[in-house]
Amino acid sequence: MPELRQDPLSGRSVIVAENRAARPDQFATKNGRGVDVCPFCPGHEHLTPEATAVYPADAHAPDTQWRVRVVPNKYPAVELNASGDRGEAAVGVHEVIIESPAHVVSLSDISGEDARLAFVAYRDRLQTLRQDSRLAYGLVFKNARADGGASLEHTHSQLIAMSTVPADIQFELAKAGEHRMLHGSCAFCDLIDGELDGARHVIDTESFVVFCPFGARFPYEMWVLPKEHRESFEATADAELAELAELMQNLIRRLEAILDSPAYNYWIRNAPYRLSSHDDYHWRIELTPRMTRLAGFELGIGCFINPVSPEKAAAQLRSVTARVV
Amino acid sequence: MPELRQDPLSGRSVIVAENRAARPDQFATKNGRGVDVCPFCPGHEHLTPEATAVYPADAHAPDTQWRVRVVPNKYPAVELNASGDRGEAAVGVHEVIIESPAHVVSLSDISGEDARLAFVAYRDRLQTLRQDSRLAYGLVFKNARADGGASLEHTHSQLIAMSTVPADIQFELAKAGEHRMLHGSCAFCDLIDGELDGARHVIDTESFVVFCPFGARFPYEMWVLPKEHRESFEATADAELAELAELMQNLIRRLEAILDSPAYNYWIRNAPYRLSSHDDYHWRIELTPRMTRLAGFELGIGCFINPVSPEKAAAQLRSVTARVV
Repeated sequence: MPELRQDPLSGRSVIVAENRAARPDQFATKNGRGVDVCPFCPGHEHLTPEATAVYPADAHAPDTQWRVRVVPNKYPAVELNASGDRGEAAVGVHEVIIESPAHVVSLSDISGEDARLAFVAYRDRLQTLRQDSRLAYGLVFKNARADGGASLEHTHSQLIAMSTVPADIQFELAKAGEHRMLHGSCAFCDLIDGELDGARHVIDTESFVVFCPFGARFPYEMWVLPKEHRESFEATADAELAELAELMQNLIRRLEAILDSPAYNYWIRNAPYRLSSHDDYHWRIELTPRMTRLAGFELGIGCFINPVSPEKAAAQLRSVTARVV
Repeated sequence: MPELRQDPLSGRSVIVAENRAARPDQFATKNGRGVDVCPFCPGHEHLTPEATAVYPADAHAPDTQWRVRVVPNKYPAVELNASGDRGEAAVGVHEVIIESPAHVVSLSDISGEDARLAFVAYRDRLQTLRQDSRLAYGLVFKNARADGGASLEHTHSQLIAMSTVPADIQFELAKAGEHRMLHGSCAFCDLIDGELDGARHVIDTESFVVFCPFGARFPYEMWVLPKEHRESFEATADAELAELAELMQNLIRRLEAILDSPAYNYWIRNAPYRLSSHDDYHWRIELTPRMTRLAGFELGIGCFINPVSPEKAAAQLRSVTARVV
């Protein structure tokens, strides 16, 4: 049973999930737990737990092919019926969003329609899970390629909904609250105002803005924010989800134009499910290729070293042409 | 010039050091910046900046071979004469400690005498740099093998001394201060008392205790603490350094007996150079192999997933026999 533990001195949270050690690893070269048959490909649905959602909705009907399929994670980091031996139980839900029937590694390689449905699935699953009063926070994240932490190739993301609000999010909420008190405005809206058309600006669409953050941890790290003040990702309308999916594919293609098949991650920094009246948030997506490895310096004191300034990264990301698919 | 930047919302620190992008990479397979000649091997001293220290001290004399050699990092993340364009200047000193004349990858493969001198060098360099009033904190860390973030094979560690105390360390100081107020004792001494002979205990020597921490981020993560209350690593006596070097080689050999040529890191969590009278600290070394990759979940909300409980890891580490060299 997974356990949630907190280091008493750093306040750092760890989920101890021993069942995850048994995961197969498609990228494994040495440990002999390779995967011959992709469990995410059509025809192999029996290799995953039963789907909690499929897209389009009529893909349950005979002879209708699913485009996006959401399944419980077979090796969950959190479980609804978890109980802790030594620490607190790591209570939650861990799902996998299979983003296309196509066996490709990158979100940039799937059809626009599949990408759109993947983003619809992110929203719907976050929305559905928030109805469960045991769950306080939902994180959608993607690990692409081995250096991004993926153990299976076939393009997918994950959703972990948990019973506590992570300390990082609480810290940011407090900072945004302070900002609101001092300036009477949203810290993130003000951040957007400062980055629009600045040296770190990458691109914007009707509803979204993309820039490399001032304190970028990684080369080519980008943040995507809705221009209008929106607390929760779940509030994103269908038309905006289509725009966002296309934008994310475009950004990943830009990364792939600059870098050689980069591993990457993205995740949605979302508001907690239940915001109190004095809480303030504005969701964003953080997207980063994984060119540098976190080493002793970063792990030792939590400070990052970034060899590419966000200003230089943004200039390159602006000028590159995303491949047309 | 390297810059120190802080993300306004997370408080996270980043050093933007563009000169580090030019580093050669001995592990590189794709980027063409491989290294043919090891700059850390004897006879290649001209490939590094001039040494700031050599061990034994008479290794400056003709025909006396150095065992350990400390040189300025050619691609520093911090510089004493740094000035910031957009952020604060990342002021500091970045050195490399070459731990043996032998071209081997792991600290476990060098002679006991070389290892002892490496730990003497850590202490002496931290001690020397603390005399500089511009420097507030010194971190010694090791990256071994590519997955540990090393760019050169030849066994070495690094020292980054900087002008500010990292937020992580400040947080821990505050927690230790609270603990002292509430309990009248050192949080770390109390932690040791709780772990001695417990399920997470690995080994202890006359002066040091080793355990897997309750909130271990990584499989087989270990912490090494002096049993007596010691704020700063610099206070470690010569005899204790010899004991510590032997212990660290032993622990790494245990890891190497369990895992297949593991990448690993260690770092010294040390007190700031100038502790105020109400500050409380107790130094430790954190040692961890790098078997898991930090992925979207860890980066997204700062929570780690560890598939091997520290209790199970400690049991394995206790039972394994470290190879005799």
